[in-house]
Amino acid sequence: MNQIKPHIIFLMGVSGVGKSTIGSLLAETLNIPFFDGDDYHPEQNIQKMSQGKSLNDDDRFGWLQSLNQIAFEASQNKGCVMVCSALKESYREILSKNIEAYSKWIFLNGSFEQIKKRINNRSGHFMSSDLLQSQFDILEAPKYAINVDISLTPKKMVEVISKQLSEKSAFGLFGLGVMGKSLARNLASKGFDISLFNRHVDGQEEDVAKNFKDEFEELSTALAFDDVALFVNSLQKPRKVMLMVNAGKTVDGVIEDLLPFLENGDIIIDGGNSNFNDTKKRFDYLASKNIRFVGTGVSGGEEGALKGPSIMPGGDLEAYKEVQPYLETIAAKDANDLPCCTFIGTEGSGHFVKMVHNGIEYVEMQLLAEVFTILKAKGHNPDQIADILASWKATTNSYLLEITIDILRKKEGNDWLVNRIMDKAGNKGTGNWTTISSTQLGVPSTMITSALFARYTSFYKEERIEANRNFAPNNTPNLNFSAEELLEAYHFARLMNHYQGFKLIQEASLSNNWGLNLSELSRIWTNGCIIRSDFMMELVSIFKVSDNLLKNDEIIQRIKALKPSAQKVTSQCILNEVAAPNLIESISFLNSFSVANSSANLLQAQRDYFGAHTYQRNDDHTNKFYHTDWINN
Amino acid sequence: MNQIKPHIIFLMGVSGVGKSTIGSLLAETLNIPFFDGDDYHPEQNIQKMSQGKSLNDDDRFGWLQSLNQIAFEASQNKGCVMVCSALKESYREILSKNIEAYSKWIFLNGSFEQIKKRINNRSGHFMSSDLLQSQFDILEAPKYAINVDISLTPKKMVEVISKQLSEKSAFGLFGLGVMGKSLARNLASKGFDISLFNRHVDGQEEDVAKNFKDEFEELSTALAFDDVALFVNSLQKPRKVMLMVNAGKTVDGVIEDLLPFLENGDIIIDGGNSNFNDTKKRFDYLASKNIRFVGTGVSGGEEGALKGPSIMPGGDLEAYKEVQPYLETIAAKDANDLPCCTFIGTEGSGHFVKMVHNGIEYVEMQLLAEVFTILKAKGHNPDQIADILASWKATTNSYLLEITIDILRKKEGNDWLVNRIMDKAGNKGTGNWTTISSTQLGVPSTMITSALFARYTSFYKEERIEANRNFAPNNTPNLNFSAEELLEAYHFARLMNHYQGFKLIQEASLSNNWGLNLSELSRIWTNGCIIRSDFMMELVSIFKVSDNLLKNDEIIQRIKALKPSAQKVTSQCILNEVAAPNLIESISFLNSFSVANSSANLLQAQRDYFGAHTYQRNDDHTNKFYHTDWINN
Repeated sequence: MNQIKPHIIFLMGVSGVGKSTIGSLLAETLNIPFFDGDDYHPEQNIQKMSQGKSLNDDDRFGWLQSLNQIAFEASQNKGCVMVCSALKESYREILSKNIEAYSKWIFLNGSFEQIKKRINNRSGHFMSSDLLQSQFDILEAPKYAINVDISLTPKKMVEVISKQLSEKSAFGLFGLGVMGKSLARNLASKGFDISLFNRHVDGQEEDVAKNFKDEFEELSTALAFDDVALFVNSLQKPRKVMLMVNAGKTVDGVIEDLLPFLENGDIIIDGGNSNFNDTKKRFDYLASKNIRFVGTGVSGGEEGALKGPSIMPGGDLEAYKEVQPYLETIAAKDANDLPCCTFIGTEGSGHFVKMVHNGIEYVEMQLLAEVFTILKAKGHNPDQIADILASWKATTNSYLLEITIDILRKKEGNDWLVNRIMDKAGNKGTGNWTTISSTQLGVPSTMITSALFARYTSFYKEERIEANRNFAPNNTPNLNFSAEELLEAYHFARLMNHYQGFKLIQEASLSNNWGLNLSELSRIWTNGCIIRSDFMMELVSIFKVSDNLLKNDEIIQRIKALKPSAQKVTSQCILNEVAAPNLIESISFLNSFSVANSSANLLQAQRDYFGAHTYQRNDDHTNKFYHTDWINN
Repeated sequence: MNQIKPHIIFLMGVSGVGKSTIGSLLAETLNIPFFDGDDYHPEQNIQKMSQGKSLNDDDRFGWLQSLNQIAFEASQNKGCVMVCSALKESYREILSKNIEAYSKWIFLNGSFEQIKKRINNRSGHFMSSDLLQSQFDILEAPKYAINVDISLTPKKMVEVISKQLSEKSAFGLFGLGVMGKSLARNLASKGFDISLFNRHVDGQEEDVAKNFKDEFEELSTALAFDDVALFVNSLQKPRKVMLMVNAGKTVDGVIEDLLPFLENGDIIIDGGNSNFNDTKKRFDYLASKNIRFVGTGVSGGEEGALKGPSIMPGGDLEAYKEVQPYLETIAAKDANDLPCCTFIGTEGSGHFVKMVHNGIEYVEMQLLAEVFTILKAKGHNPDQIADILASWKATTNSYLLEITIDILRKKEGNDWLVNRIMDKAGNKGTGNWTTISSTQLGVPSTMITSALFARYTSFYKEERIEANRNFAPNNTPNLNFSAEELLEAYHFARLMNHYQGFKLIQEASLSNNWGLNLSELSRIWTNGCIIRSDFMMELVSIFKVSDNLLKNDEIIQRIKALKPSAQKVTSQCILNEVAAPNLIESISFLNSFSVANSSANLLQAQRDYFGAHTYQRNDDHTNKFYHTDWINN
């Protein structure tokens, strides 16, 4: 707990909001003197009011000054609670003159109707609507005040106020988009004291944090800000600020906004889908400023973030240990009730594995889309397809399979809603980056790339329509395989997808000396995240004995058993002109990858022929390079 | 022609190299005074020599000082030619004292045997081997001298010397690797005066430019340097320096090395395979220094660069106009005898199209490798495969097809050489970058990526061998299609490759406002470059009427005619586990691309379900975004 200065706590608001009640209760709780401003009117004011005349600003001036004097004296001692309507900014300036640094403003806030009803219910009180209305008319609500909703019970109001006055939050959440909001509610519901920040953008983002706080009961003790300085100042040291903002330049901008207010050892956690290369750069940059940095992947979408996401933190291990209680508590739990959150590794490794997670997700989604395409081509409607997919759960269940079934069953009138959705698939960068990373690492992540390109292809809607006119077959497809064989081809493709995804992670780990643990990684993906599945649960133990699925006996046997169906289904798709690029890629890749002596020797000969690039020989293991004059035999 | 200062031209070398003869001839040519050092010995030296005693350094001191005095006086006038053996650096320091800036050193250079023979042939001269040997022993050959080979005729020697003294080169070539050397010889053989530079690296790159110049007759009037200042200074203004160095940081380093010696308006041409994004950055950087920049792709390999490459310059159009005569003259010529060189566009567009050229090349090579794989699987040996490919020339000839035939025929003993080449295919970045660019642009360049990934796959040799043991089929392939059908599938895939390659260029052009001309681009690719082919010649006119091959009637008809073979061949490859990823991708892509209503609607529904990403509807063209609660029906 941080030391608190003696506070002069001004409770303000229109007549009838309960200032005196709350103020005396609060003073009692804080054990400091209580002053009701109305008790200090000079004689001439009391006379004027007793004559039914309203006070003008000149009348108020001396009175406010005398209150300021009382407050000033209290500030030299234990502080005090002072009640005064203080509706105008000019009044408040008088009240807090010379004691600005000690002044805290509490604005008891309620609607006109609410207050009127409350006053009328009070025995012995009557206030005209006109008088109340005139107070609302002159009210200049202070943005800097702690805003307290008068619909809470007095006890709760005092609790909220004292917390905001005397405590600092343990954890700060910066950015209240879909994911930020869900994480905030998750944190608060677990009992953490949090501060919330959302920027102010005129006409677009106004009072986002405050309104969000007001919306949910679990956030009643949270602190809401749209001022960076106040937000940072509301946090215990070392401060822990989790960013949930758009990846890219926004993150750098936010870091620059925060830096002036942070101190050595404070911790920034980037929970967005940042590029892992950026995370590495930010880690180094912030280290140079003595600020610690954790870059963490968070998967689970809106619902996962709320109920328990899968969390992939990387960067500074010591810093992670300080935020570990928060992240582990809000994370999903695996089958053994362990948190789906583990320290991934140094640098940008947390964001790297989240990126590949999303790449794997692209493929899992695309494979289901292709199954949908094929079953449609076989004449089934979405409900029938949902029935078929439901029967697959026993063999190869996954979160994405389950939501696909829900989607396919969703009706709109007599039609299925899915039929009304525009077939242009968006992407937000991570599939793109996974392809680029695999390209840069020299790892053939063919399925992720194929799934990404399928989304790109979807965007060429107009050209596809024209190509359809020019190239589509005249006859209806005659796909000569069973739904069971399709299931096997789908299952086969999922195996290849997980092989490629974890292979990319393994290669990146070797290349960057991250020392990643594939078993632990698959464990935190067994719940909370989008690619959770029965197969992911199996991988936890498989990766304990092997770091390469294509070298694992159990997987090898499964692949061999499923391969004939993969061959049959994909060759039929090609012959029937049914689009199944990702299913096709799964078998095409395995066929290419299981060639002991490939025709890459011809490529090397060609490169040597035209570019003198030289080649190595398969009968010389000395790494010597050869060049041949190919023209003259 | 630039102004020349009065030069003091020292001709040096051991006795008998012809200093006096060449010196007087040179002085006559340059119309400046001639001094033979031997004529200025003081009396005591003459006496000593006449007594058969050799001079020591003390004897020489006064004599060299008097020669320096003569030279100094000449430097105030028209300059002079002065002959003196000047074998030691210490002598030369005395000779050029206070006139270093005006001194030019010509070293007449020959071997011991050559000089001895020459002296003995002179009437009236006799020199002992010992005396000549003692001169060679003390000789300290100056690196800064213009080195002239005494085996040339006196007339030629004077020509070489006067050219090097009085003229500046029109064009500078920086970096003498495989491509740099070929371009240098190409430029020189067309009659251009060029300066050559290659860096000096102790023990690794020593006298590269000089040795290269000595190696080829056409380079006899070229100037060779390993000093950047002298190299730049040897060029006419505005200087034109073409870099042929490794792409990446080397280019930036070289630019920094050059900058101190360049002046406003000088032109740097980067002829390496630089990344187009870097080219844009360098263009802007150099513009800020008032240096003009042209980034140009050069394709054709070693032989193309020598005999005529395809050249793709981009960047500063005005600068290009100044280098146009050089680039157009050395470029290959198309069927109409026009140069295969055209200004591509602004920024890095020249390097961009070269990059995509290489991406197309990756696919063309990979397709031939897959044809090789398939024909091997059908039981043919390399000679038989060469015969089959030779028969394809009539239909679909290309440079790469031709060299593949040469390669397949190449024997080593009783075996074919290709069988001895290690099947790990290298790459130098451009295929990689093409994939990254298409990923960033949102263009599905599936075939280039597939060809790149095929190379990556080839590198996993050990894992492939293991996968082969685990997954390879037991039965030999039974590919149920003819060589003619394979030709059609190959032809089909080439069409798709060219569609995708030019599509990527077109999309980049739109995205960057480059205004690229696809017809002109295909024209400069009809000769000189690696992807020249009969089909490329057809594209020149096709792109005059359409910028999209999939919308061109002629191409549409061809694709429709070839498609059944592509389907048959690739489905058979899948069923027989024959690796043909690029052929398979060609048909898989077209099948995906000709779907009017794809299953991307399901992807959008999934994204909206778990991430609230929203979707558009196909029955609402207002660009409105929808979100659905998918769980409750």
